[in-house]
Amino acid sequence: MRSKVSEATVQRLFIYLRTLEKFQKNLTLSSQKFSKLVGINECSIRRDLACFGKFGIPGCGYKVEELRREIIHILGLNREWKLALVGVGRLGRALLVYPGFNREKFRIRLAFDNDPQKIGKILEGILVQDVEKVPYLLPKFRIKIGIIATPTEAAQRVADKLIEGRVRGILNFTSKHLVVPDNIKVKNVDLSTSVEMLSFFLTHRINES
Amino acid sequence: MRSKVSEATVQRLFIYLRTLEKFQKNLTLSSQKFSKLVGINECSIRRDLACFGKFGIPGCGYKVEELRREIIHILGLNREWKLALVGVGRLGRALLVYPGFNREKFRIRLAFDNDPQKIGKILEGILVQDVEKVPYLLPKFRIKIGIIATPTEAAQRVADKLIEGRVRGILNFTSKHLVVPDNIKVKNVDLSTSVEMLSFFLTHRINES
Repeated sequence: MRSKVSEATVQRLFIYLRTLEKFQKNLTLSSQKFSKLVGINECSIRRDLACFGKFGIPGCGYKVEELRREIIHILGLNREWKLALVGVGRLGRALLVYPGFNREKFRIRLAFDNDPQKIGKILEGILVQDVEKVPYLLPKFRIKIGIIATPTEAAQRVADKLIEGRVRGILNFTSKHLVVPDNIKVKNVDLSTSVEMLSFFLTHRINES
Repeated sequence: MRSKVSEATVQRLFIYLRTLEKFQKNLTLSSQKFSKLVGINECSIRRDLACFGKFGIPGCGYKVEELRREIIHILGLNREWKLALVGVGRLGRALLVYPGFNREKFRIRLAFDNDPQKIGKILEGILVQDVEKVPYLLPKFRIKIGIIATPTEAAQRVADKLIEGRVRGILNFTSKHLVVPDNIKVKNVDLSTSVEMLSFFLTHRINES
């Protein structure tokens, strides 16, 4: 199934989920109504969901609670993901307290750095450990996702260590293009993409006015 | 034109640009080759570019340097955007040194906070000023983009101040849904979306293996 599911589909599943969460559980939404609410056409919605089974009742629509629960399951959000953070500089520390990484579903459990000044300290309730311990500690804590918030130069070395520690996914906050085996999924997070998008919309708004 | 251009098109324009930047300026790429390089089908590429004029030579392809320059122009990346940051907590400080916000094209020029302990201090070379001065200082510095990196509760109040200071775009790092006039563009940045995407891909990889 993996090869058929695009990142765009996954992104839309999140949109569906966020929308469903706003409605009463016992409601049924017609497919037209649901399409209008999420701003995505009925055909795409059907195609996205068809990747994972049969959803919705023909001529009736989607049951809010049922679809919500199914999507949570599809997205793997019905379990807790433990995270390991490497790099507790400014960005790393911001991530340590970022609500999205410290809720039930995702939680930073281990933090690492290579700076002797930081190793052994407790930051935001988490002990900072020597980055050399990554390959040893991650399997012990069954951590499958690593976050890289180090300087760019260190990113590949850290990625190698995380892989040695048997992570399956890496969240990369550096601009380094990581080289990893096929079975490892990397998500690059570039905070400047968002401001670049703004630049487009403002440019064209400015041109119009 | 604005109504016709979707965020998806803008995102693809960035993909085209990043790809073109890897090639020699004097090269010409056939539309098939270009399509393969960016991983987007020829038809979509043509449709995206058609929003902005005529590009490419029929039967020949795209001239790397020409297309690159056109896209930079379309995206508004041929000018400097000055940014104002509100909130110099952990995340704000990380943004102050984040390369993407401190290059030629985007540069944080003013920083604000409401904490008397921080006001008047110089952080990363920038004087932290009282958030109350936002409406007064932003027009003076011709700043059109504001970044909100405050606690969620303060976000709407800060957005109102930024709008009073005549910004046209807001980069919102909080989870608050901002209410703004139609002529203001908001980009919400949710750092956890990326880890949620990983959860999907890891779930299905795990299920498969």
